[in-house]
Amino acid sequence: MISYRKELWYNAPTRLAFINITSEITDCLAESGVREGFVLVNAMHITASVFINDDESGLHHDYEVWLEKLAPHGPVSGYRHNVGEDNADAHMKRQVMGREVVVAITDGKLDFGPWEQIFYGEFDGQRRKRVLVKIIGE
Amino acid sequence: MISYRKELWYNAPTRLAFINITSEITDCLAESGVREGFVLVNAMHITASVFINDDESGLHHDYEVWLEKLAPHGPVSGYRHNVGEDNADAHMKRQVMGREVVVAITDGKLDFGPWEQIFYGEFDGQRRKRVLVKIIGE
Amino acid sequence: MISYRKELWYNAPTRLAFINITSEITDCLAESGVREGFVLVNAMHITASVFINDDESGLHHDYEVWLEKLAPHGPVSGYRHNVGEDNADAHMKRQVMGREVVVAITDGKLDFGPWEQIFYGEFDGQRRKRVLVKIIGE
Repeated sequence: MISYRKELWYNAPTRLAFINITSEITDCLAESGVREGFVLVNAMHITASVFINDDESGLHHDYEVWLEKLAPHGPVSGYRHNVGEDNADAHMKRQVMGREVVVAITDGKLDFGPWEQIFYGEFDGQRRKRVLVKIIGE
Repeated sequence: MISYRKELWYNAPTRLAFINITSEITDCLAESGVREGFVLVNAMHITASVFINDDESGLHHDYEVWLEKLAPHGPVSGYRHNVGEDNADAHMKRQVMGREVVVAITDGKLDFGPWEQIFYGEFDGQRRKRVLVKIIGE
Repeated sequence: MISYRKELWYNAPTRLAFINITSEITDCLAESGVREGFVLVNAMHITASVFINDDESGLHHDYEVWLEKLAPHGPVSGYRHNVGEDNADAHMKRQVMGREVVVAITDGKLDFGPWEQIFYGEFDGQRRKRVLVKIIGE
């Protein structure tokens, strides 16, 4: 069994951002040499997500509006978590979008449907944060 | 290490549908010969889900009503993604229900609690779409 | 390949509860002897979650308020699932928070970011329910 690990760092310029990280995961996979197995990609921070969806800017705008409606940032004082912080909403948005994805590796490639792309979802940005890539297989 | 891969195709007759695919995953597992490991089951399309819950028609009705409230289909023009499409809501419903499940394999069986069943959740149906089954283990 | 399996039992004193189970997962990992691999931790019941977030009581209060707003417990008769049951909302809350987590194992440890903690999320408590821990690796 081969195991491979890498941390990827991001610093989103805005509080909320969606960053397509598919090509970096593809690079990790090539580096690992794994032909058959699983890759786990997860946010290492609890106000961020890794998820799979479409790379379409209209959709990303819609996600932002929708998440803000489901878990509004303000009023900041409406959340008990916000004592010396203002990111309670980010902990909720992250649960809706998910912490992690597990992707099948087949014949040395990410085994994806036609539109699947991997995103880092940031809900409390403007700081350096990490994504973990862990691959196991053969 | 054994690795096994199969695509399952579905064509839901309605826009939204929940299809119990547990027996097909059980068949894949038998075919793989894996006794200990993990099975990943994921939607290969970004407007569909794979999730685990109860096979109870009342609950499925409740899910439909609830998802429609969280992410309404209309007005279609309320989403920027809906340029030549009308499925923005399906991209949101899929995030709530999730893309994938990872299930433990123990002694050659899906290692399930008493009511766990695997569903394909379709949110933009009436077309042929795929689910990926990937098994690794021994 | 090593495989390891354990069931953990919980009996939450309230309908909704968040229980930090990180140290029990750490114990399982030590017991397994796995140095590199994945651990899957999932609720075996369909009205409960396993998720990763912050161990902060204000946030847990905020999650409870937020989940109750997204999927209210009552009126109980508002859900078709509630025939002889009153837990339809718990099936929804569980989908928002998720069934499972997959965590990387690196050098014999849970490969976590600074604040990641594993929780059992109970949405229909006051009864004995199980979490499955399955580890594969080397």
